[in-house]
Amino acid sequence: MRIAPTSNPDFAAALAAAINNKTKPLGSLGALERLASRLGLIQNTVAPTIRQPAILVFAGDHGVVAEGVSAYPQDVTWQMVENFLAQGAAINVFARQNNIDLHVVDAGVNHDFGARPGLVDRKVAHGTRNFALEPAMTPAQCATALEHGAALAADLPGNVVGFGEMGIGNTTAAAALMHKLTGIPAAECVGAGTGLSPDGVLRKQRVIEAAAERHAGVDDPHAVLATFGGFEIAMMAGAMLKAAALRKVLLIDGFIVTSALLVAARIEPAILDYCVFAHCSDESGHRRMLDALGAEPLLHLNLRLGEGTGAALALPLLHAAANFLNEMATFASASVSEKSA
Amino acid sequence: MRIAPTSNPDFAAALAAAINNKTKPLGSLGALERLASRLGLIQNTVAPTIRQPAILVFAGDHGVVAEGVSAYPQDVTWQMVENFLAQGAAINVFARQNNIDLHVVDAGVNHDFGARPGLVDRKVAHGTRNFALEPAMTPAQCATALEHGAALAADLPGNVVGFGEMGIGNTTAAAALMHKLTGIPAAECVGAGTGLSPDGVLRKQRVIEAAAERHAGVDDPHAVLATFGGFEIAMMAGAMLKAAALRKVLLIDGFIVTSALLVAARIEPAILDYCVFAHCSDESGHRRMLDALGAEPLLHLNLRLGEGTGAALALPLLHAAANFLNEMATFASASVSEKSA
Repeated sequence: MRIAPTSNPDFAAALAAAINNKTKPLGSLGALERLASRLGLIQNTVAPTIRQPAILVFAGDHGVVAEGVSAYPQDVTWQMVENFLAQGAAINVFARQNNIDLHVVDAGVNHDFGARPGLVDRKVAHGTRNFALEPAMTPAQCATALEHGAALAADLPGNVVGFGEMGIGNTTAAAALMHKLTGIPAAECVGAGTGLSPDGVLRKQRVIEAAAERHAGVDDPHAVLATFGGFEIAMMAGAMLKAAALRKVLLIDGFIVTSALLVAARIEPAILDYCVFAHCSDESGHRRMLDALGAEPLLHLNLRLGEGTGAALALPLLHAAANFLNEMATFASASVSEKSA
Repeated sequence: MRIAPTSNPDFAAALAAAINNKTKPLGSLGALERLASRLGLIQNTVAPTIRQPAILVFAGDHGVVAEGVSAYPQDVTWQMVENFLAQGAAINVFARQNNIDLHVVDAGVNHDFGARPGLVDRKVAHGTRNFALEPAMTPAQCATALEHGAALAADLPGNVVGFGEMGIGNTTAAAALMHKLTGIPAAECVGAGTGLSPDGVLRKQRVIEAAAERHAGVDDPHAVLATFGGFEIAMMAGAMLKAAALRKVLLIDGFIVTSALLVAARIEPAILDYCVFAHCSDESGHRRMLDALGAEPLLHLNLRLGEGTGAALALPLLHAAANFLNEMATFASASVSEKSA
């Protein structure tokens, strides 16, 4: 699954010229201009399109919840999956609003849903093991999750894929991945998640520090993913790698989704060329993780809901970037005078 | 034109309960929750709607361009109005994308358009006078502009009004209004506008300082508006005051639009209850002006294009705020467990 970098200086210059000839002061569309350029580079065109955007929401449970690292009981994972299927969650509302196809995937929820219309069953196991005590998954489970994710991404008809997740305990897994892969101190990786008390956040930090010590020899990104990750995180990383290999635009949501990307980027650094960062979350480690990836997020709305909500909310900006590049007049076509001073 | 404050502690508590009962961690929709609450307070309902949103784009010319304060020639004002009418400008693209009715108003452009389909002719004069030498408009002209704006706002069928503008030289007028009304030093009010050089920005600052000294006795907001404003700014202020009196949502764009609001808020402070701040512009004084108004802008995209583009780009977030409040399940309705820790 090789991912080609998008860098192409000649084409980047052509894109910049197309953007700069539009009837507006130079650079005045700010982040939208960088976004338009990114879309153009990914699609290798000065007329990028947003076609059949989809969001994959991966759900999974985490053995590490036994350490008391979440404000909500584990049952909320499957209950929220039911809520997704009943169209009642925030991601359903925002996906509907923005014409995004939503795919809900059971990557490893600790619950038997049975066959359910609308639920994509790729359950690897009934939740991961507790990484405070042992690796969260076996190497084989991790490989299975990556493969399922890749297959799901390959099946999508559109050219933009957003990512979302649901999994009680998964900010702990994401913070552990961040700590292991970036070396940033655990205290700066952990946050309140769904609403932990300051004591709870400290407990979470200690759990991660102890686990990092226990699994100190683990360094390879696949091994780090298997040791600390979740099935939803691994499946997402697999989907990201495949989507980028297919030159789709990856729309990255919040803290947990970005941790999956962090893993994927250690496997294939060029994946970052295909990413649009939807937002900077209120989960306190997210800003640091984005910085570690050199990412410039579009939205700053203090969201910390997950589910892919930030990705769904950012989609109109992708449309706006493509639309201004495709539809605005140029100074020449509109007979508007150029800058004089 | 009295504007009633929206404050209503009982109703605000009911709105907060409605927001907090939705299936999401408490506060996890961040700025969207504050926005939903604002929409609910303006419309006095826990089920706010966004109905037939419109953007009024006011165009006007400025005598102060004689001082060399703009990077573009004055003809660009009318040329860009032509571009609006031909659907080729950024605001046309973003308004189309987001189903916003766009109204282009000639408030005082220094050009004869003749009768033109799609152009609302409310020309007060062929541009203002040069406020470096004399008041930009007469009190009667200023009153006429305010009245035209109010009438235009009253004619809008929808419940959300965005504001935009076009006018070469109008960042100078806006910075002068900001300096006079807030007392913030001119150096912190001026910016590069459409792309002035640092020398040009300094010249602009000196023009404003000298004009503030020349018109030192002018303090009343109407007199300040007449002395330093533009016809597009005055007409916009009139439209804002009327729209708020009619309990419409005011969607505030960038630096110049916010300067019009600053004037309106000195006339009727309760107008701020009806405002949603679309974005923080890259024009350097905008952040300070927003702070002076206690405003929390939604988007941070380094835009500095004007035309109402930031307002148009923010509209999907207003829909999202109304939609989550109207469409999301509650913990009870979805049988999702509440917080345990």
